Amino acid sequence: MKTELNRDIEAALQPLSARPISHVFLVACGGSLSIMQGGKYFIDRHSTKLSSDIFNADDFVCRAPQRLGRNALVILCSQTGTTRETARAAQHAREKGALTVAMTLDPASPLAKASDFTVAYQASYTTGIAIDAADSNYAVLYMLLTGVLRATDGIDLVAPVLTSLSALQPAIDRAHQVFADRFADFAPHFKDKSAIYTLASGPSYGAAYSFSTCVLMEMQWYDSQAVHANEFFHGPFEVVDKNAAFIVLIGSDETRRLAERARDFLLRYGAESNILILDSAELDLSAIDARFRGYVEPLVFFDTLWKFAYRLADLRRQPMLEGRRYMKKISNY
Amino acid sequence: MKTELNRDIEAALQPLSARPISHVFLVACGGSLSIMQGGKYFIDRHSTKLSSDIFNADDFVCRAPQRLGRNALVILCSQTGTTRETARAAQHAREKGALTVAMTLDPASPLAKASDFTVAYQASYTTGIAIDAADSNYAVLYMLLTGVLRATDGIDLVAPVLTSLSALQPAIDRAHQVFADRFADFAPHFKDKSAIYTLASGPSYGAAYSFSTCVLMEMQWYDSQAVHANEFFHGPFEVVDKNAAFIVLIGSDETRRLAERARDFLLRYGAESNILILDSAELDLSAIDARFRGYVEPLVFFDTLWKFAYRLADLRRQPMLEGRRYMKKISNY
Repeated sequence: MKTELNRDIEAALQPLSARPISHVFLVACGGSLSIMQGGKYFIDRHSTKLSSDIFNADDFVCRAPQRLGRNALVILCSQTGTTRETARAAQHAREKGALTVAMTLDPASPLAKASDFTVAYQASYTTGIAIDAADSNYAVLYMLLTGVLRATDGIDLVAPVLTSLSALQPAIDRAHQVFADRFADFAPHFKDKSAIYTLASGPSYGAAYSFSTCVLMEMQWYDSQAVHANEFFHGPFEVVDKNAAFIVLIGSDETRRLAERARDFLLRYGAESNILILDSAELDLSAIDARFRGYVEPLVFFDTLWKFAYRLADLRRQPMLEGRRYMKKISNY
Repeated sequence: MKTELNRDIEAALQPLSARPISHVFLVACGGSLSIMQGGKYFIDRHSTKLSSDIFNADDFVCRAPQRLGRNALVILCSQTGTTRETARAAQHAREKGALTVAMTLDPASPLAKASDFTVAYQASYTTGIAIDAADSNYAVLYMLLTGVLRATDGIDLVAPVLTSLSALQPAIDRAHQVFADRFADFAPHFKDKSAIYTLASGPSYGAAYSFSTCVLMEMQWYDSQAVHANEFFHGPFEVVDKNAAFIVLIGSDETRRLAERARDFLLRYGAESNILILDSAELDLSAIDARFRGYVEPLVFFDTLWKFAYRLADLRRQPMLEGRRYMKKISNY
């Protein structure tokens, strides 16, 4: 079991000893942006010294926040490191004097080259290679932020975070077994829906965002939206009828009651066969530190839902990655 | 023409002279939350002293950010002032020692009572009474933040903001004329769509959020989503075909090129008759200070789109406010 942060993470943290950081910008696009929800939640819950923002990379460049300067840390993420908006955002941040850390699979990528430091991670979804979740984008982000928190607030969560991350992959593997039959049952019900919503709260909202926009919309052309569990009651819930299809992610973090309330409403006014509920309380996450469980649950939800997406793809006879019509198919857009 | 901020706003600003504020929390639910996008954009663009967050009210209570304390200003908004989550959020913030300012129609409401200060505004959508946009929720928020900026950063934009707000209602009235024929043309095309997306960037993203979730979903039961103009290219754009219905809001703020890029893509791969474009460049906003134009455009877009929604409601024979099946119809959810 690892007892120290990765060397590239420690290297990225090195400047913090001489440079007071007061703000963290979490910057990316699409799926890489979605993981930042967990990161911001971690900062909000633990740090009295740090404010933080999540920005789409091109929004960040145009908006050009006044607070971007020497006391800002900018964490950027792009799987391939070739996302143009994100590489440009790194360049913009460096020009403003901020400290920039790139998260990417490829330390030789444009994003890595545009940033002060690079932290490598691994991915299985697009590469097809099985990885350990402790090496994933979320894991690396949490390790990085744990190190930042230690430097800025003097709170040392490195040991419980590393222990938790090392227990994560077995927990995900068990979760696949828990949800497998449910996915098989629900896929035929969801196959021909025109719209499927994914509802969540807290750190798990990122998994809902990624599943709705980067899987259901991008790869299966469903109409979709990630619905925040409380915002649901201030507009979106009016679409609920016996045909409406919802996926509900219920984590164990402090916002759990928000998702429970939405689940109860959906079971009352929707049809049970159209409300796919994934509840972390059904899972064995006992090897993960209770303080850190809510943060890793989006990985569990997204990884298991990926299997559900493949079931839908099979029934719809629309391939997943290869099914996209624009992304990586056309250029100059 | 007004040359001074409203008295209730000046009263709410009074404590800032003796109390350094470093963070602004913008807290509400649904439509009242949507206006905060413009507020945060204003802070990001103008203040070097203030960080800020937008939180759904119940999320804010559960998340309980560590930075919430004596140096935080919490601005909350609820039309009727009876939104339970928002009143509870005000109470939570006061308990943590923060300065709380409630925006509401009703200074005797639970939200107002739970807050240190109340700033009143007017609304026409739900009351049916015509108002001047200078008295709206957006206008009051911008006046308040202009006063905060003057206190924290020493930047005085009060005069141009008041001048701009006083020129807003005539600009909105002219915009209705510019868009009227287009709405009549598009309504029959959009009437029977199952999904309609609203795309925007910058301050206008709030108008897209409100129109998608609080009008299209809530009142007309369309499947919908507010799509961020750059996030569009990282997933959502894959749903675009010749049948996909999009409303595109193009403002004059610094993120304009993001919305232009999405518009160009939509016109290329979608069908022109399904892409309803509202561009602020078509409007006469010359009486509004150029620095402030982008901030008032969401009001122009939302107010004019409200007319489009009524056209859809007529064609679909589904009333607007009275058409809701849960909100204000059932209780105990």
